[in-house]
Amino acid sequence: MTQAALTDLDVANRMADAARAAILPHFRTPSLNAENKLAGGFDPVTVADRAAEQAMRAVLAELRPDDGILGEEFGADPGRSGRTWVLDPIDGTRGFISGTPTWGVLIALSDESGPFLGVIDQPYTGERFWGGAEIAAMTGPLGKKPLQTRGTAALADSILFTTFPEVGTAEERAGFERVAARARLTRYGMDCYAYALVAAGQADLVIEAGLNAYDIQAPIAVIQAAGGIVTDWQGNPAHNGGRVLAAANATLHAAALELLRQTRTG
Amino acid sequence: MTQAALTDLDVANRMADAARAAILPHFRTPSLNAENKLAGGFDPVTVADRAAEQAMRAVLAELRPDDGILGEEFGADPGRSGRTWVLDPIDGTRGFISGTPTWGVLIALSDESGPFLGVIDQPYTGERFWGGAEIAAMTGPLGKKPLQTRGTAALADSILFTTFPEVGTAEERAGFERVAARARLTRYGMDCYAYALVAAGQADLVIEAGLNAYDIQAPIAVIQAAGGIVTDWQGNPAHNGGRVLAAANATLHAAALELLRQTRTG
Repeated sequence: MTQAALTDLDVANRMADAARAAILPHFRTPSLNAENKLAGGFDPVTVADRAAEQAMRAVLAELRPDDGILGEEFGADPGRSGRTWVLDPIDGTRGFISGTPTWGVLIALSDESGPFLGVIDQPYTGERFWGGAEIAAMTGPLGKKPLQTRGTAALADSILFTTFPEVGTAEERAGFERVAARARLTRYGMDCYAYALVAAGQADLVIEAGLNAYDIQAPIAVIQAAGGIVTDWQGNPAHNGGRVLAAANATLHAAALELLRQTRTG
Repeated sequence: MTQAALTDLDVANRMADAARAAILPHFRTPSLNAENKLAGGFDPVTVADRAAEQAMRAVLAELRPDDGILGEEFGADPGRSGRTWVLDPIDGTRGFISGTPTWGVLIALSDESGPFLGVIDQPYTGERFWGGAEIAAMTGPLGKKPLQTRGTAALADSILFTTFPEVGTAEERAGFERVAARARLTRYGMDCYAYALVAAGQADLVIEAGLNAYDIQAPIAVIQAAGGIVTDWQGNPAHNGGRVLAAANATLHAAALELLRQTRTG
């Protein structure tokens, strides 16, 4: 098969496969903790993180040499095609070093208007969630399924996720808690896995702050392809990171946005 | 094979297999959410919960008819052997309805001095953690491995888990936060999976409050078999539930206990 015959999703799948192979030997190993300890205190940048980004960049060098790359570990390369692959080799490094299967490999493909293809991969559980033009699906322990967000219409019926209870600044935490106070259930600690659960129709909202572009571009593409909405806390595009609101549908998005947009910018 | 030829661990594995088969058809299905909604508000008792306990009780009726049973869903049966199987078919029902792979099937076998065999099973990831006399191991996506807690000696190097940031009462939350303030990293949302991670040498401490006997007996057996310690916040046995401190080793247990035991009882 020639390079051109591979779809962008094919390329993304090869990248995710390469990242899995690079990361899994380092997951739940004693040496990982030893290295973090030797480095002095808590440093979530691991050997696995770097190896996975290098493995994904090697796939792009071979199959999409003209595209740009923005990676968490090795920075930005503008490319010559107007398209950029946005990579977070291990989103949720704190989850990773704690052994939880909530971290993920994030791969997005973007142009000037934002991400139009995304993959969220969880190597340990073997789950992969992807979304783009006319595609939204996942594979995992129970097989392949389409991704479709759900129709929960009221905050009072919604399940809300964020990763840390403190969320961000005190102001941001207060914004989050205005929504949490009205939700049916609030859960923590899921890293990028929370966005995958919204795309899969299992949860309704994710609210976070202080994100980088590479944390959120893949979730945006996957959730939008599955029928959901992702914006910042003012309702504007979130693909540059910052404060993020992901919702299963427009009704719920509007209800949460009304509570979040009172948050002072800054 | 006769009934007597099956070890207690064999029986526990058959129970866990039966629970998996009963639960997985109900995990991540739209109907689950619909049922909860029809029941009016948040009711974590699901069809899957009840079906799994019935499936486990059926295994015991066949293979260990003289043993007692204490189950979350169908109560206590004292039995005639002095031994009791303590069952939580789905520990972490909030995680379950949110789609996270952090809930588990808990199976313990106890006598008058507490649990001496335990299984923590996560059906979706295919992970099983077990511990008892001279056995402590797990199976999962990366194969079979022995379980061994780790030697983290200082709170400042420790990874601490609890399920909800509020922990329990305000007093209990303050106790938890005294430890969290000294830990290297605090993570939330893991349900019984957190105890499995301590047994697997990936995390160091779990602190919770308001538990029932069936929430904690299996984790006690698994963690103790892997080299860890589980007590209440006064250093006494925790197998009746309440406030629980699970630690990877005696040094860390003593350091956390010193901060928790100031908590007022009641």
